[in-house]
Amino acid sequence: MENEKYYPVSQQAVTVDDRFWTPRQETNRKKTIPAVHGWLGKTGRIDAWDWKPGKESKPHIFWDSDIAKWIESASYSISKVPDRRLEERIDRIVDIMSARQCPDGYLNSYFINVEPDRKFTNLRDMHELYCAGHLIESAVAYFQATGKRKFLDMVSKYADHISRVFGHGKGKKPGYCGHPEIELALIRLYEATGEKRYLDLSKYFISERGRRPFYFTKEYLPPNTLTMTAGETDYSYCQSHKPVGEQMEAVGHAVRACYLYSGMAALCFHAPDSDLFSACKSIFKDIVRKKMYITGGIGAFPEKEAFSYEYDLPNENAFAETCANISLFFFAHRMSLLDCSSMYAEVMERVLYNGILPGVSLDGMSFFYSNPLSAFPHPGDVRHEHMGTQRKKWFGCSCCPPNVSRLLASLGSYVYQRNNDGIKVNLYVSGRAQIEVSGTMVAISQESNYPWHGIISFKVDPSESKYFKLLLRIPEWSRRYSVKVNRKNCPHVVEKGYAVIRREWNSGDRVEIEFEIKPFIVEANPQVRQDCGKVAVQMGPIVYCAEECDNGRNLADVSINASRPQFKVMRNSGPAGASVIFANASRRTGSGWNGRLYRRYLPAFKKIRLKLVPCFLWGNRKMGAMTVWMNKG
Amino acid sequence: MENEKYYPVSQQAVTVDDRFWTPRQETNRKKTIPAVHGWLGKTGRIDAWDWKPGKESKPHIFWDSDIAKWIESASYSISKVPDRRLEERIDRIVDIMSARQCPDGYLNSYFINVEPDRKFTNLRDMHELYCAGHLIESAVAYFQATGKRKFLDMVSKYADHISRVFGHGKGKKPGYCGHPEIELALIRLYEATGEKRYLDLSKYFISERGRRPFYFTKEYLPPNTLTMTAGETDYSYCQSHKPVGEQMEAVGHAVRACYLYSGMAALCFHAPDSDLFSACKSIFKDIVRKKMYITGGIGAFPEKEAFSYEYDLPNENAFAETCANISLFFFAHRMSLLDCSSMYAEVMERVLYNGILPGVSLDGMSFFYSNPLSAFPHPGDVRHEHMGTQRKKWFGCSCCPPNVSRLLASLGSYVYQRNNDGIKVNLYVSGRAQIEVSGTMVAISQESNYPWHGIISFKVDPSESKYFKLLLRIPEWSRRYSVKVNRKNCPHVVEKGYAVIRREWNSGDRVEIEFEIKPFIVEANPQVRQDCGKVAVQMGPIVYCAEECDNGRNLADVSINASRPQFKVMRNSGPAGASVIFANASRRTGSGWNGRLYRRYLPAFKKIRLKLVPCFLWGNRKMGAMTVWMNKG
Repeated sequence: MENEKYYPVSQQAVTVDDRFWTPRQETNRKKTIPAVHGWLGKTGRIDAWDWKPGKESKPHIFWDSDIAKWIESASYSISKVPDRRLEERIDRIVDIMSARQCPDGYLNSYFINVEPDRKFTNLRDMHELYCAGHLIESAVAYFQATGKRKFLDMVSKYADHISRVFGHGKGKKPGYCGHPEIELALIRLYEATGEKRYLDLSKYFISERGRRPFYFTKEYLPPNTLTMTAGETDYSYCQSHKPVGEQMEAVGHAVRACYLYSGMAALCFHAPDSDLFSACKSIFKDIVRKKMYITGGIGAFPEKEAFSYEYDLPNENAFAETCANISLFFFAHRMSLLDCSSMYAEVMERVLYNGILPGVSLDGMSFFYSNPLSAFPHPGDVRHEHMGTQRKKWFGCSCCPPNVSRLLASLGSYVYQRNNDGIKVNLYVSGRAQIEVSGTMVAISQESNYPWHGIISFKVDPSESKYFKLLLRIPEWSRRYSVKVNRKNCPHVVEKGYAVIRREWNSGDRVEIEFEIKPFIVEANPQVRQDCGKVAVQMGPIVYCAEECDNGRNLADVSINASRPQFKVMRNSGPAGASVIFANASRRTGSGWNGRLYRRYLPAFKKIRLKLVPCFLWGNRKMGAMTVWMNKG
Repeated sequence: MENEKYYPVSQQAVTVDDRFWTPRQETNRKKTIPAVHGWLGKTGRIDAWDWKPGKESKPHIFWDSDIAKWIESASYSISKVPDRRLEERIDRIVDIMSARQCPDGYLNSYFINVEPDRKFTNLRDMHELYCAGHLIESAVAYFQATGKRKFLDMVSKYADHISRVFGHGKGKKPGYCGHPEIELALIRLYEATGEKRYLDLSKYFISERGRRPFYFTKEYLPPNTLTMTAGETDYSYCQSHKPVGEQMEAVGHAVRACYLYSGMAALCFHAPDSDLFSACKSIFKDIVRKKMYITGGIGAFPEKEAFSYEYDLPNENAFAETCANISLFFFAHRMSLLDCSSMYAEVMERVLYNGILPGVSLDGMSFFYSNPLSAFPHPGDVRHEHMGTQRKKWFGCSCCPPNVSRLLASLGSYVYQRNNDGIKVNLYVSGRAQIEVSGTMVAISQESNYPWHGIISFKVDPSESKYFKLLLRIPEWSRRYSVKVNRKNCPHVVEKGYAVIRREWNSGDRVEIEFEIKPFIVEANPQVRQDCGKVAVQMGPIVYCAEECDNGRNLADVSINASRPQFKVMRNSGPAGASVIFANASRRTGSGWNGRLYRRYLPAFKKIRLKLVPCFLWGNRKMGAMTVWMNKG
């Protein structure tokens, strides 16, 4: 395992300058970050820190995490585009929090102000350590963006308090959080500070989880406590039904799950543990082979925001929460550092373009909570506000908007990985990076019109001639590709899904990899009953969909000619410069029904030219129906 | 309207002797009726009448209705097959109820024993008049079966009490029940007793419903009251959002809806009202054209057991409660008395065979609450106990088992209708009947192997030569038919879906009508998104389905050749003598996946011979998947 390890190339070392992503990052910076800040204020989330009984807008147990994810996003943003006003806004919030931090380090607006006597008494339901985790992640991001230590010191003090409260020692609580998050956060705190005690605390939370007797059973306080899932005794919902090293399948609440799995994988990175790593690999496979939408979305079951059983992937009622999809991205990222298989970066790419990006509108101001694979908006359809047939500006539980914002703002940190042997390219995102390989700084620049075009050019500028390997991911959808170095076909090997170029690199070397980007038809495993008789269309990494505004009413009645597809691609003709695809298809004529609901089958079809747009774009024009999976005609 | 009116031919006048139905009625009599009685006892429903605070099994507000429907079913049964022991069981329950009836006539086990101070204070939620209605219906049935007046007198006294409590007079409550049922029951009481005051009380309840200011708003008592839907202000759930004569669409809880509509249609029969009749016709069309499953099931929306919006007919998550389907049967029956269009009897036939009959297992001992059109049972599928992927022996709320039982026991009463001009045959059910036409008694016998064979023979024996018309329904699925009288082709006209034979009938006349009963493919309107790309198979009135136990795993992946179907019918080869259909179909080979969830489309099909069985039979052999709608190959 050790010799496979790669290290991340941080946000700070990478500048994204990409025709596809830069506009999204700019919108995030100019629209989403200010909008989310506005909502934090309007809804009382900032004032929550100074709330007093009797006042309006009583704090909610989740609220600190919303603020934290906003600070994290804003921090990534100012690390690339300095913004004094934004920095002041963060400082103001940090000051507010600082003023309320307890002398022992405790830091949580809900428990400080609403239930001061109940700190750490209901770990299962109250998201207390979850909020702590997000505060820690945001403080790390803010420290790395600005070098200011105040917030980092505050959360370090809080983490130290947490480590005094939790653990196996006498008088300590042998607990862990119902909503994982602090595990990964503590590792990020360790990575930022080098303080091993934070790694150890994370390791404690991870290894204690799910051991018998169950902590959640011991702590359970029936009355007078706000219990989100009172009476729940199956702890698989929060992944604490058995020790994590014995967990081989993805179960329960999907965000909790993949935050935990991300923490587990991150722990394996710093403290190798073959059982834990086996569990991570087994769980990852379980997701990718049985529980993931074609969009990379996860957590199919709306009622519990949870993984459903294997191959159960309803489309119209998909949950596939934006946060869950992001958490899968994190998990895949952490796995890709440990195990040099392109499988992980494949999932990162799939979910990034198709499962995360739909979560925010093109204008950056409205958001999907759940990400269905088909939608048929109707005024008579009484869905939960989280069930997405239309993006919303904010939610009562508004975890997703700041989450997609922080991911977009930190995208640069997921493009490259490095170790002493070389550089691995996971995502094709144009821009520049400074990467150290075994003591030599390598400037690398990437240029393409990905994902619409398949030619990606790199310029490699080591500060001195240097032998190392460059790994370029060959996407699984690619059927033909070529690699050139300095305009000549380049000998290379393919290892675990990467084209590996081993050579001595010199300043000014140019690498070009080209993939064929053409539409193709996708089918789902016959065990996915919801996709039987249906196919989808993909081009490059982008999953396409049909929208009512392009194709008229009764969208579900469209059948695409899957056996003899004829595609026409209109480059740069969709919103945001997207390629639009036209496909030969048919639909029933719809005549002769005379109002009847059923009739003896009368084959009467008309041929149509079906217009398909990237599924991340859906719902950005007119409200109407959408479907990713179409009947196989 | 008046000259179109037909009168029912009662249960007492009809003997069912049918190869299809008699075994079901025998199972109902020998298995279901005793089993339901057992559950009534075991669950405390009978003891509820003598419950005292502190005792176990506190009565539930619905329980009287379960007992009542069982008495009703048992009454129909003993009216055809006398059974002294069963009659004694009923008498025992009647005695128990009688002992607890209040001096003023009030009769409800829950309010007498649990909340005596809250009688008639929460009409919206407490099902109080609903229970009264079922007691009335059962008392009418028991009186008609035995001639015993005790129970009838008890409910008459209760109805008189209700009429003193409710109405427009001074000191009266201007209310009506949140769960309609008493409206139809009072009309049945009027029909049985001739006492017009019961018709008037029904008319009051119907015409008062939905008037402003809303009674339910006035009576609403927020705390301390068991409110099933506290805070509900949209009264469409219980069809009281506007006056019933202005209601043009089927909305809300489906059982409530069709019990109300049945009452409205029954009221129109006795007290013609063109507005009310227009509303009935409009609502009926709305159901049949936009809100009814191919099985005749209604109430698609599980969360509210309610009608969904137009054309929203999910298959796997269909609710289509057995009781709702029965209520549609009642509504159609009452409409068919008013309006001589075969449309109503068509719906009766459709829902009887395909929407009601699946509600009970072949052995009569287990029941579906909801009736999905596809099911994929899986241990990881956490559904409400009402959501049917497997029949259950009983339910906490067990309205369906005694309801399907009473319908099966009373089937004879739905076969014929009469007026002074003639006899109308609505259902093809073999047996004998005594029917009066304008002063002449006509003995009619019917003989067929319907629904498996299409030849139905009648023998018509008037007590004297008599000119009248005989109406024989021509099913909408029939493409070819012939009518013979005394073995000769018979001149006839077709009026509103009936073959009408006008002649002078003599003793011993024989009529034969023959329909072609062959499998055919059905499609749903393109506006039903859930059925797009899919077809179903029907033969005669029977909707077929594919089951996993016949066709193997991944049942949803089957595609039937809809353009060139080749059917082979195996008569008498299925359970209960059913015809089984084999159809040419295909499915993906399922190979080459290597555990992947998605792949580039690779057309690889194998031809299969798909075995189809009547959908009412599904789930009677091995537990497994089932689907009515199949991919169109």
